[in-house]
Amino acid sequence: MGKKYYVGIDLGGLNIKGGVVDPKGKVLSFASIATEGQKGRDHVLDRIAALVEVAREQAGIPPERIAGVGIGSPGPLSIKKGLIYEAPNLPGWTNLYLAAEIQKRAGYPTVLENDANAASLAEAVAGAGKGLPCMLMLTLGTGIGGGIVLDGRVWHGADDIAAELGHVSICHSGRRCNCGSIGCVEAYASATGVVKRTQEALRAGTRSSLAKGSKNDLSEVAKEDKCRHVFQVAKQGDRLAAKIVADTIVYLAAAMASLINTFNPDMIVLYGGMTKAGSQLFGPLRKEVARRCFKVGAKRCKIVRSKLGGHAGVIGSAISAMHLLGKA
Amino acid sequence: MGKKYYVGIDLGGLNIKGGVVDPKGKVLSFASIATEGQKGRDHVLDRIAALVEVAREQAGIPPERIAGVGIGSPGPLSIKKGLIYEAPNLPGWTNLYLAAEIQKRAGYPTVLENDANAASLAEAVAGAGKGLPCMLMLTLGTGIGGGIVLDGRVWHGADDIAAELGHVSICHSGRRCNCGSIGCVEAYASATGVVKRTQEALRAGTRSSLAKGSKNDLSEVAKEDKCRHVFQVAKQGDRLAAKIVADTIVYLAAAMASLINTFNPDMIVLYGGMTKAGSQLFGPLRKEVARRCFKVGAKRCKIVRSKLGGHAGVIGSAISAMHLLGKA
Repeated sequence: MGKKYYVGIDLGGLNIKGGVVDPKGKVLSFASIATEGQKGRDHVLDRIAALVEVAREQAGIPPERIAGVGIGSPGPLSIKKGLIYEAPNLPGWTNLYLAAEIQKRAGYPTVLENDANAASLAEAVAGAGKGLPCMLMLTLGTGIGGGIVLDGRVWHGADDIAAELGHVSICHSGRRCNCGSIGCVEAYASATGVVKRTQEALRAGTRSSLAKGSKNDLSEVAKEDKCRHVFQVAKQGDRLAAKIVADTIVYLAAAMASLINTFNPDMIVLYGGMTKAGSQLFGPLRKEVARRCFKVGAKRCKIVRSKLGGHAGVIGSAISAMHLLGKA
Repeated sequence: MGKKYYVGIDLGGLNIKGGVVDPKGKVLSFASIATEGQKGRDHVLDRIAALVEVAREQAGIPPERIAGVGIGSPGPLSIKKGLIYEAPNLPGWTNLYLAAEIQKRAGYPTVLENDANAASLAEAVAGAGKGLPCMLMLTLGTGIGGGIVLDGRVWHGADDIAAELGHVSICHSGRRCNCGSIGCVEAYASATGVVKRTQEALRAGTRSSLAKGSKNDLSEVAKEDKCRHVFQVAKQGDRLAAKIVADTIVYLAAAMASLINTFNPDMIVLYGGMTKAGSQLFGPLRKEVARRCFKVGAKRCKIVRSKLGGHAGVIGSAISAMHLLGKA
């Protein structure tokens, strides 16, 4: 018997990415297709199954050497059941046994994994945190997701809902979070939180080049670019934008210090749009984290940007399949 | 070969407890002696070694069936090196290779473990969380300690300083903590924090039966009883005391909700003086935690009082020895 390979699928609202991955996390093929969610559930399921075949053929691997398929999907979901309770970006995807549906269509054993967990696992196996005993990840997007990889395995928790690291509280009586709780770091430091705090300040009359009609008018920027815009305007010396960025760093640092004091991890990887700010984010963030946790823990824990970027979901989903099918 | 036994030692500033424990966490003998730290380091080391023998004899186990000794000690310490960096309650205990010293004196392989980790492990192996895949513990004393047990093993982290759960932040710009950070739950909800907040309110002139010269004058109560006193006076309807207790519950709940969203644990065990408040603490705490974390996680995670109490340190230290010596 030769080496076994896995197909990783990264299921998003806009695109589905897929590729063949070897047991060490090396990508042998990679493809991305539109999700076309508006055409209905069965259409998307067929597209996923077709992508599995495309990825396999591109990699030149015969079917008998594909050991399984892993699908990384946004939650909430049950890994044990291969069940998606709800997919917010895909209409009609309620209580769908996604793993079984793909297994039926593609013909390979298939498992489900949370997308942030999958990306974290990829970084821990083949990316920034390769081989480290304890690596955490924060995905900084419109929300904040997380992943925990301990001794090379995703920590799933009792109900597969561990690592909701965006819902670590940084303020016992702070902002309401979408999740229903109070003071979650997501409510402050996600792109949504950054934009919201900026808009609140502008509405309150704070002078800024981000104000309506000013040079950097925030309301003229597309929604998904607003957070990045605030970071860029901060660099140009706008005081409000600089304050918003500085506060964002304090909020992230408070959550990360809690995680460092909890896990004493080797590394925290940051992933997602906000990390494009580069040294504007990482420099002051590392300093602020060090102020807020035990010295030994701060010294140990590297804070770095994701290395695998857009490939992390595919790689991690494949490695998840290897781990979860290996267990079964 | 018959069954192997371990001696657990729970090293405190006032007392040293010791006992023989079987691999399932059953206590075969238990003894407690004064630490006599003021008589110097060597004196205490000799006492620990003597206690190992006393515990063994009391249990009626021959020396060849004692597989090792585990010592639970307050940190900071290195488990890998068996080294105590500093023992705040024991003068002159700086950079002491405690495990090697006891091994030399008592003649058994000896390992060191953080005391809160040891107590947590005991509860996970033989106590309230027996057999659960994920159990966390918070020790509510003059400070707040913690322990994390995953799949039956203590999570130590990269430098043996994981599980500093008292230093999970609940307020990004809150109270200064003794550790140097900001907003740690210990600064609010430890016995020290409870008393401090009460005294601040009294100094600010808040009316209360806890005020100087009043019926429940807090300043007349011994230091170690002050926190309990506040809880008792709250029960009698004192508004300030009731507010302090209610706030304490919010602070603890914020930290616990963060931990539940992070680990999706089966159980959080509370340990230490404050848990004597019983339903006055646990009832409202369970409700407040449920308000602050994901529903599935809140439903899963039992919040209970330690079952092993004063025996937890001895049992856990012995089990730690079994795990750590088994690995080596």
